[in-house]
Amino acid sequence: MKPLAGGLETVPGFLFSAVECGIKYENRLDLALIHSKAPCSAAGAFTTNVIQAAPVKLCRERISNPVHAILINANNANACTGEEGYRNAASLSGEVAGLLGVPAGSVLAASTGVIGVQLPTEKIRKSLPALVRGLSGEKGPLVARAIMTTDTRPKEAAARFETSRGEFTVAGAAKGAGMIAPNMATLLCFLLTDMPLGREVLDGVFRKTVAATLNAVTIDGDMSTNDTAIILCPAAGGLPDAAGDAARFEEALLHVLSSLSEMLVRDGEGATKFVTVSVTGARSDGEARLAARAVAQSLLVKTALFGNDPNWGRIACAAGYSGAGFREETLSISIGPVPLLLRGVPQAYDRKLLGDAMGGRDISVAVDLGVGGGRFTFLTTDVSYDYVRINAEYTT
Amino acid sequence: MKPLAGGLETVPGFLFSAVECGIKYENRLDLALIHSKAPCSAAGAFTTNVIQAAPVKLCRERISNPVHAILINANNANACTGEEGYRNAASLSGEVAGLLGVPAGSVLAASTGVIGVQLPTEKIRKSLPALVRGLSGEKGPLVARAIMTTDTRPKEAAARFETSRGEFTVAGAAKGAGMIAPNMATLLCFLLTDMPLGREVLDGVFRKTVAATLNAVTIDGDMSTNDTAIILCPAAGGLPDAAGDAARFEEALLHVLSSLSEMLVRDGEGATKFVTVSVTGARSDGEARLAARAVAQSLLVKTALFGNDPNWGRIACAAGYSGAGFREETLSISIGPVPLLLRGVPQAYDRKLLGDAMGGRDISVAVDLGVGGGRFTFLTTDVSYDYVRINAEYTT
Repeated sequence: MKPLAGGLETVPGFLFSAVECGIKYENRLDLALIHSKAPCSAAGAFTTNVIQAAPVKLCRERISNPVHAILINANNANACTGEEGYRNAASLSGEVAGLLGVPAGSVLAASTGVIGVQLPTEKIRKSLPALVRGLSGEKGPLVARAIMTTDTRPKEAAARFETSRGEFTVAGAAKGAGMIAPNMATLLCFLLTDMPLGREVLDGVFRKTVAATLNAVTIDGDMSTNDTAIILCPAAGGLPDAAGDAARFEEALLHVLSSLSEMLVRDGEGATKFVTVSVTGARSDGEARLAARAVAQSLLVKTALFGNDPNWGRIACAAGYSGAGFREETLSISIGPVPLLLRGVPQAYDRKLLGDAMGGRDISVAVDLGVGGGRFTFLTTDVSYDYVRINAEYTT
Repeated sequence: MKPLAGGLETVPGFLFSAVECGIKYENRLDLALIHSKAPCSAAGAFTTNVIQAAPVKLCRERISNPVHAILINANNANACTGEEGYRNAASLSGEVAGLLGVPAGSVLAASTGVIGVQLPTEKIRKSLPALVRGLSGEKGPLVARAIMTTDTRPKEAAARFETSRGEFTVAGAAKGAGMIAPNMATLLCFLLTDMPLGREVLDGVFRKTVAATLNAVTIDGDMSTNDTAIILCPAAGGLPDAAGDAARFEEALLHVLSSLSEMLVRDGEGATKFVTVSVTGARSDGEARLAARAVAQSLLVKTALFGNDPNWGRIACAAGYSGAGFREETLSISIGPVPLLLRGVPQAYDRKLLGDAMGGRDISVAVDLGVGGGRFTFLTTDVSYDYVRINAEYTT
């Protein structure tokens, strides 16, 4: 596996397009299309929120179909929009199918933006011919740009890998910034590979890698109605999957998803810190995940990190209410290389060394529950004044 | 039942004292004592955090004993302090018992403040004689003041009620401000009544009223290691409890706890809004509670409220991931008198009317899940710049 510069456009066989449709703002790419002439197998991971945006419902229905395209818009979530919202998603994707000459059920859809407002369907409809005309193999970066909302920069990653069947590429583009929580939040992530894979292999590898990456990220703990991660690969056509090949694909996909996850957190709303919370010594990986998530989501921990405040009591406290099993006297906590609590005993520490470990942009928090071998790592941000400003001013 | 002005000092039979001990800051009341010459029955509600502060451990062991006193300190939580911390709590409460001439096991303890630092036992020990000498029936307000940390004002409430056995009083003092979440957080709350009650009645009424008040409050979603609510009443001495009398006590206690809960939220760290989140139409009260808590804890909802932003999609989103059962088409949301979503259909609304409903200090958010008769109400705050400032600067 070797990392590649660039994003979606590095994967042969796919075409891209993006236009300024004026969904909410003028002079801003807000409508994008990903297209494959050959039918693809797809796997998806979607929000588990009771409220599911119309495009999520559409994707869930169509994810097992042969897929030819994904239509994506920013600045309107098409969520809490009832039957009208669903009809809009179905009809717009149907028009795209018509323009592309592919079956209606082969077009997926994804939306991100404000909840509870119907899509401006006329504007979008009028833009579709230009969107389809503009398709080219080089416009991956435009897709990454068009899906942004409060993101400050596009997020793209790619990797190339060798298999027994030759060299393949996997790449992805994502948007995030707010409403980011485990099980994904307003996260849209699109992944492509030119390696033909059976549906079950694709699905299994995708779920496993998403659990360790996109679902191990939290910015504000709010899980959105629109979370969508989709991967497309050429339909396998009955080829058996050599086990070693799937492992190489997994390694490359993990690299792409890890890179995108890190970019999501680094571009978290108002973030001034990139925080890695590693929990070890849990009774199981699942309990390690509970503890890592509680620490990563704690508002008190996150504001302390913003203030470069070595308030490790807040870390102990969050681990303590996480549901993970441990005892006070088994708990150890360190920040960077500096132990603060060792098996329940507070440690004297070098203020200068700790200041260095907390003062930079990257902070690592290590929590050892001391009761087993389970481990899990979460990525998160601090909570800053800017986080509050961005979210207090979002729709008004 | 009639509300009374004042606090703990309105309850006959109890004595109070508070001194400036210099636990962390000079010239600040930080050590308090509540004392009853007659033995009391006690009931307690404590943090469910795995990490339990030393005084919480002590209280759990002693809560069924006849109780004569509660020793309380601010500015040091005596949490994550191991066996030494426990020995300190036991030895200081033992010294108080000696000075009062009561059994060692009859003195409870409570602490609030920074985690992971040993108590300055010598300072405290030296202050105990003056603390005990200062006991008087009038110093309730000093106790309410001494237990404050980032609170900006003391929190006291009282009520008088008639029973078949005559007139009684119940009163309380609380501190809160940060680390406030259901199951209490760094909340200390002390309640007294002069009505003799059997232990089971006291415990049953206390649990029921705490569930509807202190455990229906959230400021930051972080549950602390020190949460303690304790009520004392004269030991009943075998008197049967007339059912009607217990109900009158319950009504008065509910008033006191509701008043204190409202004060806690109004004085929440950095709060500019007092927010009531009422969920109705759930399949059960328990599911209504899940939804109300998710909305009340959502960082996105709280920052939107800070910005007077009618972003009801965030409310729908939080209800949707809460675990409460409902469907998009059964959900209704209003803010103040203004319906925003009616059975899944977004409503056009009067911007002026909504501006008035959101612009004031008090905001009420009503969520009807539309699938049953369950209901629950949570109190919460917005999240402001000041919240971040206060919590970024706490220990440094």
